[in-house]
Amino acid sequence: MTKRLLCVLNREPVWPPPIWLMRQAGRYLPEYRAIRAEAGTFIELCTRPELAAEVTLQPVRRFGLDAAILFSDILMLPWALGYGLRFQDGEGPVLPRLEPGDIERLDLRRLPDAIAPILETVQRVHTALDDECTLIGFAGGPFTVACYMIEGGGSRGHARVRAMAYREPQHLAALIRRLTDATISYCAAQAEAGAEVLMLFDTWAGLLSPRLLRQHVVGPTRNIVAALKTRFPDVPVIGFPRLAGTLLGEYARVTGVDAVGMDTVTDPAVAASLVPAETVLQGNLDPMALCTGGLALATETQAILSALRGRPHIFNLGHGILPETRPEHVAELVRLVRSA
Amino acid sequence: MTKRLLCVLNREPVWPPPIWLMRQAGRYLPEYRAIRAEAGTFIELCTRPELAAEVTLQPVRRFGLDAAILFSDILMLPWALGYGLRFQDGEGPVLPRLEPGDIERLDLRRLPDAIAPILETVQRVHTALDDECTLIGFAGGPFTVACYMIEGGGSRGHARVRAMAYREPQHLAALIRRLTDATISYCAAQAEAGAEVLMLFDTWAGLLSPRLLRQHVVGPTRNIVAALKTRFPDVPVIGFPRLAGTLLGEYARVTGVDAVGMDTVTDPAVAASLVPAETVLQGNLDPMALCTGGLALATETQAILSALRGRPHIFNLGHGILPETRPEHVAELVRLVRSA
Repeated sequence: MTKRLLCVLNREPVWPPPIWLMRQAGRYLPEYRAIRAEAGTFIELCTRPELAAEVTLQPVRRFGLDAAILFSDILMLPWALGYGLRFQDGEGPVLPRLEPGDIERLDLRRLPDAIAPILETVQRVHTALDDECTLIGFAGGPFTVACYMIEGGGSRGHARVRAMAYREPQHLAALIRRLTDATISYCAAQAEAGAEVLMLFDTWAGLLSPRLLRQHVVGPTRNIVAALKTRFPDVPVIGFPRLAGTLLGEYARVTGVDAVGMDTVTDPAVAASLVPAETVLQGNLDPMALCTGGLALATETQAILSALRGRPHIFNLGHGILPETRPEHVAELVRLVRSA
Repeated sequence: MTKRLLCVLNREPVWPPPIWLMRQAGRYLPEYRAIRAEAGTFIELCTRPELAAEVTLQPVRRFGLDAAILFSDILMLPWALGYGLRFQDGEGPVLPRLEPGDIERLDLRRLPDAIAPILETVQRVHTALDDECTLIGFAGGPFTVACYMIEGGGSRGHARVRAMAYREPQHLAALIRRLTDATISYCAAQAEAGAEVLMLFDTWAGLLSPRLLRQHVVGPTRNIVAALKTRFPDVPVIGFPRLAGTLLGEYARVTGVDAVGMDTVTDPAVAASLVPAETVLQGNLDPMALCTGGLALATETQAILSALRGRPHIFNLGHGILPETRPEHVAELVRLVRSA
């Protein structure tokens, strides 16, 4: 096997580490912007397999990255369950704010038809990839998807979801249960279609107290991983509980994910001491260092490589790539990591 | 000595833990709103000692808390250095965005006169307090104060300061050096005036990569603590590097703070394992649990008390109290902690 990402996730020694980047397909690439202009809406881009597959492959072609990640959005899952979604230019996603009765209306029977074009994208990319590049499928963590549904989009203080966690705990738990079931089906379908690795993005894990993070992030992730491992024992799962900090160790132990993504503030050496020795660490270059390039990029990259040398590691960012990033800086980063 | 907060900070065994709350003086108290209406602007409230002292004492009187914290704002330091500041209702602080030359114009000679009314507040509160309540003075961490100056106020993504950290590192370092010097003078003056403990709020520490957090948060804090300890060896310092997560241990070891504040997502047991055994831990109830009250409040409070039983601990929130909080919930929290 020459897929270096899969080798690391199978705990084979690999150095220098494989590299891919969160949001590696996107606005910073001129070839992405050209395709983006062909699709009317962002959702159309995600559901036209020929376009979504092309966009998925662009950064792999340009930079020779070790993984392609399905071009999609974590909110395509609630969309596929019949929950309204649109993307507003410059403002991000807009959804209805969750109301009583909405949870029951999330319709898992809609899922197979609604995600069919996304699965076709997975198949197309799978067919197109060479034998060195690994295909990653993904979903949002149920709590993070719930955040967007409850807040009606992004939010500064996330007061609604935080209040609901304490005031209507059964309500939030019911939403997360339904989303957990849907996430299992969605991820399983991606694995069927050719995704070789699955990643769960829990961007807003850090909003929660430790007790609530256990309940709404660790527990559902454990259930998703367990269900997927039963059906796809050879498909590794990467979890990304952003800003979980001190809870990274418990998250890794309890959920059984194969790899844990580290956010930008996480110290890789301390993370390595908190998670089990067999857990792969992924991350965690500051996207602003990549955007800056030059000495800043080299220094930050070296700090991460030094901290994790000799440990299973997937080089990545600690958060999504910034749209202002120059593609040459990504090429430079790949060179830096490959020459480690 | 019957000041339980000072006892803990001197590493004497104290249980149940002393309790005070970040933003314990503020809008959630009707008696605060009455005083607030007397002052024209928020800055006027901070610089009229009779009003600021009264507001500082209100929560101590109402709840019998173990500490009073000077009523002020971390941005009163740049204000005292001649940097423009105003507070807009509902929008928070507004400052000029830092421009070239502004750093040199920060005028440390203005400081003594400008902070005189704040020091008078400290003196008044010190005189008024009984022998059970400890007076805490405070300042912002230099990096966090720099964030507000560079962004011109609060910010969602903090793109300017993060970009400056990589693109103009000398510029940011120079600003932080100047603010560090001013913070030392400001904190020393508060200790002279009667502050028995000093706290450094580094709200935005979590924006930084580990390397930059070492440079802009840990280093300056170490310098501030060292300078203060030389002059005031008996005045303990509490540091609060919010969202530093995995770096809490290094922060505690390198800076030499007596206590470390934990944010809401920090797991107290893991934090206890990361910091030295003699470091006091402060925190970290979710303000939303306090705002909710009832079972949520009791459950979250018990989780923290159980995790830290037998360890030097100061009970507090993990972030400032929410303005919507009912005062009765604070009274209930004090009862819960005192009966632990």
